[in-house]
Amino acid sequence: MAEFYSKKDLLFQLFENQNSLELIELPYFSDHSEETFKLILDAAEQISVNSLYPIFKEMDRNEPQLVDGKIRIHPKMKSIISQFGEDGWIQSIFSYEEGGQQLPWTIHLCAGFIMQAANYSASVFPFLTTGAANLIRTFGSKELVDRFTPNMYSGKWQGTMALTEPDAGSSLSDLTTSALPTEKAGIFHIKGQKIYISAGDHDACENIIHLMLARIQGAPAGTKGISLFVVPQVREDGKPNDVLTQGIYHKMGYKGAPIAHLMIGSKDACEGYLVGKPNQGLKYMFQMMNEARLGVGMNAVAIATAAFQSSLAYAKERPQGRKLTEKDLNKPQVPIIEHADVKRMLLFQKSVTEGTLALLVYCGILSDKISQEENPEKKKEMHLLLDLLTPIAKSYPSEMGVQCTSAAIQILGGAGYTTDFPVEQYYREARIHPIHEGTTGIHGIDLLGRKVLLEEGLGWKLLQKEIQKTVQEAGEIENLKELTKGFEAILNKFNQGVAQLLFRMNLGPEKYLADATLFLEASGILTVGWMWLRQAITAQKTLSKGNSDQNFYLGKLETARYFMEYELTKIEGLLPRFHSKSFPTLDIKREWL
Amino acid sequence: MAEFYSKKDLLFQLFENQNSLELIELPYFSDHSEETFKLILDAAEQISVNSLYPIFKEMDRNEPQLVDGKIRIHPKMKSIISQFGEDGWIQSIFSYEEGGQQLPWTIHLCAGFIMQAANYSASVFPFLTTGAANLIRTFGSKELVDRFTPNMYSGKWQGTMALTEPDAGSSLSDLTTSALPTEKAGIFHIKGQKIYISAGDHDACENIIHLMLARIQGAPAGTKGISLFVVPQVREDGKPNDVLTQGIYHKMGYKGAPIAHLMIGSKDACEGYLVGKPNQGLKYMFQMMNEARLGVGMNAVAIATAAFQSSLAYAKERPQGRKLTEKDLNKPQVPIIEHADVKRMLLFQKSVTEGTLALLVYCGILSDKISQEENPEKKKEMHLLLDLLTPIAKSYPSEMGVQCTSAAIQILGGAGYTTDFPVEQYYREARIHPIHEGTTGIHGIDLLGRKVLLEEGLGWKLLQKEIQKTVQEAGEIENLKELTKGFEAILNKFNQGVAQLLFRMNLGPEKYLADATLFLEASGILTVGWMWLRQAITAQKTLSKGNSDQNFYLGKLETARYFMEYELTKIEGLLPRFHSKSFPTLDIKREWL
Repeated sequence: MAEFYSKKDLLFQLFENQNSLELIELPYFSDHSEETFKLILDAAEQISVNSLYPIFKEMDRNEPQLVDGKIRIHPKMKSIISQFGEDGWIQSIFSYEEGGQQLPWTIHLCAGFIMQAANYSASVFPFLTTGAANLIRTFGSKELVDRFTPNMYSGKWQGTMALTEPDAGSSLSDLTTSALPTEKAGIFHIKGQKIYISAGDHDACENIIHLMLARIQGAPAGTKGISLFVVPQVREDGKPNDVLTQGIYHKMGYKGAPIAHLMIGSKDACEGYLVGKPNQGLKYMFQMMNEARLGVGMNAVAIATAAFQSSLAYAKERPQGRKLTEKDLNKPQVPIIEHADVKRMLLFQKSVTEGTLALLVYCGILSDKISQEENPEKKKEMHLLLDLLTPIAKSYPSEMGVQCTSAAIQILGGAGYTTDFPVEQYYREARIHPIHEGTTGIHGIDLLGRKVLLEEGLGWKLLQKEIQKTVQEAGEIENLKELTKGFEAILNKFNQGVAQLLFRMNLGPEKYLADATLFLEASGILTVGWMWLRQAITAQKTLSKGNSDQNFYLGKLETARYFMEYELTKIEGLLPRFHSKSFPTLDIKREWL
Repeated sequence: MAEFYSKKDLLFQLFENQNSLELIELPYFSDHSEETFKLILDAAEQISVNSLYPIFKEMDRNEPQLVDGKIRIHPKMKSIISQFGEDGWIQSIFSYEEGGQQLPWTIHLCAGFIMQAANYSASVFPFLTTGAANLIRTFGSKELVDRFTPNMYSGKWQGTMALTEPDAGSSLSDLTTSALPTEKAGIFHIKGQKIYISAGDHDACENIIHLMLARIQGAPAGTKGISLFVVPQVREDGKPNDVLTQGIYHKMGYKGAPIAHLMIGSKDACEGYLVGKPNQGLKYMFQMMNEARLGVGMNAVAIATAAFQSSLAYAKERPQGRKLTEKDLNKPQVPIIEHADVKRMLLFQKSVTEGTLALLVYCGILSDKISQEENPEKKKEMHLLLDLLTPIAKSYPSEMGVQCTSAAIQILGGAGYTTDFPVEQYYREARIHPIHEGTTGIHGIDLLGRKVLLEEGLGWKLLQKEIQKTVQEAGEIENLKELTKGFEAILNKFNQGVAQLLFRMNLGPEKYLADATLFLEASGILTVGWMWLRQAITAQKTLSKGNSDQNFYLGKLETARYFMEYELTKIEGLLPRFHSKSFPTLDIKREWL
């Protein structure tokens, strides 16, 4: 049994709380079955237990180094990446014609969850390649597909996303990497710098294939003038393509994965191959963005899950102190899991990790359904709902993952602060997620400034409808009436607060968006509260049937209660801001700080 | 100018917002003046800028190692510790007869704040020695004082506090290190293990003087059978005293300070010298505990302050994006300090760091007054108030320091996650404080289970009276009426919640204390809110006088407003728990987790 995640809970989420098997009724996925899904998850567990988890600490202690212009990573990564390729992980979600398995993205995401919980750094290599290959196969010419994707699928070549530049991080519209047309159609000379490129260079693959954003000479300013290119590190003839690794970033955590600083075309000899049409680069990227962002959300859930499991195991074993009602000091000490405050910290982690796993599985299934939906009206609605949920499902797990891993350290006390236990590494690794794929602040603005407003608020309305359905269902179950009442009370207050926030639109964009991050936070709490109501319904139904493993389901009910009473209530602390007409964060001047 | 703290704010806290000069009216401190206080703070800044800050990163990158049974620390620490000794830092708060300067502890604490902000790891050595020496001089015989303290004051010998054992961390009553009487009075053979001993061994001093808790053979069980011993590493004749360094802990942060695992008396040849009377050890320790805990609170404020200053400087320099109202992409990017969400994160840090600095200065002055108070009734009252404030002033900065340093990383984005900037180191270092000197959970129980109840709640009443005085004063200032109203509204709700919590005493200790950590959190927010009301009064008064440096005081007013509207309101998210009659953290069974 793997110690870094709960297989039982993952199967509960996929097959009991939500029905991922609905997907196999869709023609594209129809060769699959519960059995194939489970085989794939077993395979993910196997590679995780056998190859990834054993080097989890090692990869942190021996971080990649730049030696003679090449980044050297952990020597075992070469065989691991090969295995990812051989086992078909990289193209598993692609079609049979492409050598894929037409696997639902949901299952791919959950397989990734297992690997990320085992060793986050090691897990990112194949997922980056999948993302890069997906852009080529979706938007690129047949020539590009044939030339690049087979070696990417096999794990021989690494794929990357090369977006960020020294002066364009959150503000992609300011990127300046240039593309100069050559005589040959579709081939450009690329020149510029890219920073923070994950797996941007390493010695475990023979070539690195960058999916790079750049601006074709004369293109319009801003986001409308950005094009997407394939920029390999090594050309077809085996010669270098003038992509130099200028530096490597040393990071607080997630150290096993190399992050590179690249100089592109410094000798004016870098060829890039245009993907799709000119000036459509950002649009292409953004069509992959929901999956990428949900992927980051899942990374965060995975790390927090591993930390939870680690602190739970410790709390069950470690004796310290006695129950408050025990006065006899000659009695032995009790395991710390008996103390209310330790249970609180465990319930906090359990409620966040299992609640967000439920949310990501929900989003995964929605995404798979969208990909196969033929009714345009229905497809649009589902898309709006997923668009709305994406910043939430990215940010809430990311922000809370930081707090969960912190709670895991706290449970271990001084031991948790030492490198003798893995929780401090989880804590360091978890801190990247509120930054990756758009900071939390950016997602707040995305949610309140864009997603909530799309199509006259249709996505928001759809979310409310879905939540209402759950409330209705839960309210009819005797045992869940109290829980449902608690949820509904906060839901109503939340919606009144949102109405107040929307009024601020009259005051202009700055005031409207001043508290967008807090709105995102409250939306996250509410959404995960909804997920807990769903889980409580499922658990109660199973219990009513007299399932033999009562503990698991009773734990779900109690954790739902914890979430409603300790986490959902935090919305009350955010609401005063939504009703406020005062804006200290706008009024403060930089000279006053 | 030092870049890791705001000297202006420190002087504001000591001489304007609170009047530390009241202390020089007390005979013991009467040789001091504003000038001597400032000279001492300048000296602290000087050693910080010249010696501590320059090796802040180095000490993290080259952590201490155990080589041939001896811990080797950064080579510069030898001369730094000597300088601490020569400059009189170690015994500065002690009396003239002892070679001290009769410096108020408040000023010592604030000098420490500067050093800790510069380099937390380097700063702990002299403070540990001061604490250990203080126990010897207060409770030890003249012989022990004469034998040990002079070399401790000079920095030649290191002092430590040796409490924790493998099976007794939070539960000190379970410690088992034994003390066997010898023929010589006051000399015992000590045998046992101590873990997590800060500066427990290193090569920058010639001897390590442990103030160690142990149990004299036949002593009663529990805390009533614990005695305090001086256990030197090297005996008077220069021979080893059978204190072996069994191991060194490698930690996530705060790496420059060595934490040792000690084997004591494994060859039955360790001598310990009894301090004071038998079985009084824990009582002695606890008489020093307020200062030790407030010291940890200050460490947390210091690190969070350094992180705040670092992210503030970055936010002022780093261009990224444009104002939401700016549609012209040809306009240059603005510094990120112009974005509302960045300002929110800066205000968060500013409000927490300056609010907690105010609280610790308040506690420091109170502590100094207590030490000189001769009226026993008054002394008792002041003591009750300080006892009550101590868990708050330790825990709120510790818990919020974690969040502040996290916000500092977030402001820097990807850059903040790299080791190119110091914020990631602050984040790693800050994580120790919710653990040091009692975990947050322990302090919650201490506050609600003990401090609130002492003398029929007299301490609590005194705190409320002090808060009311401030509310009254602020309410009379036109410009602060709105602010005061906001504070009062939450204060009233908080007090209603507290009354509900107190009712739970009827339900037994487990239910009464189930939410003690949340009560501690709410008390922390309220107390710091009170500190902001005080600062707002001071700032408004100065502004009314037409001070030339308006920016500083306008910043104080705006930050007070931020705190009331964004932080104080978080109490609303905690209150539902105080009114609840349901206890998920008690009801959950370990098999369900």
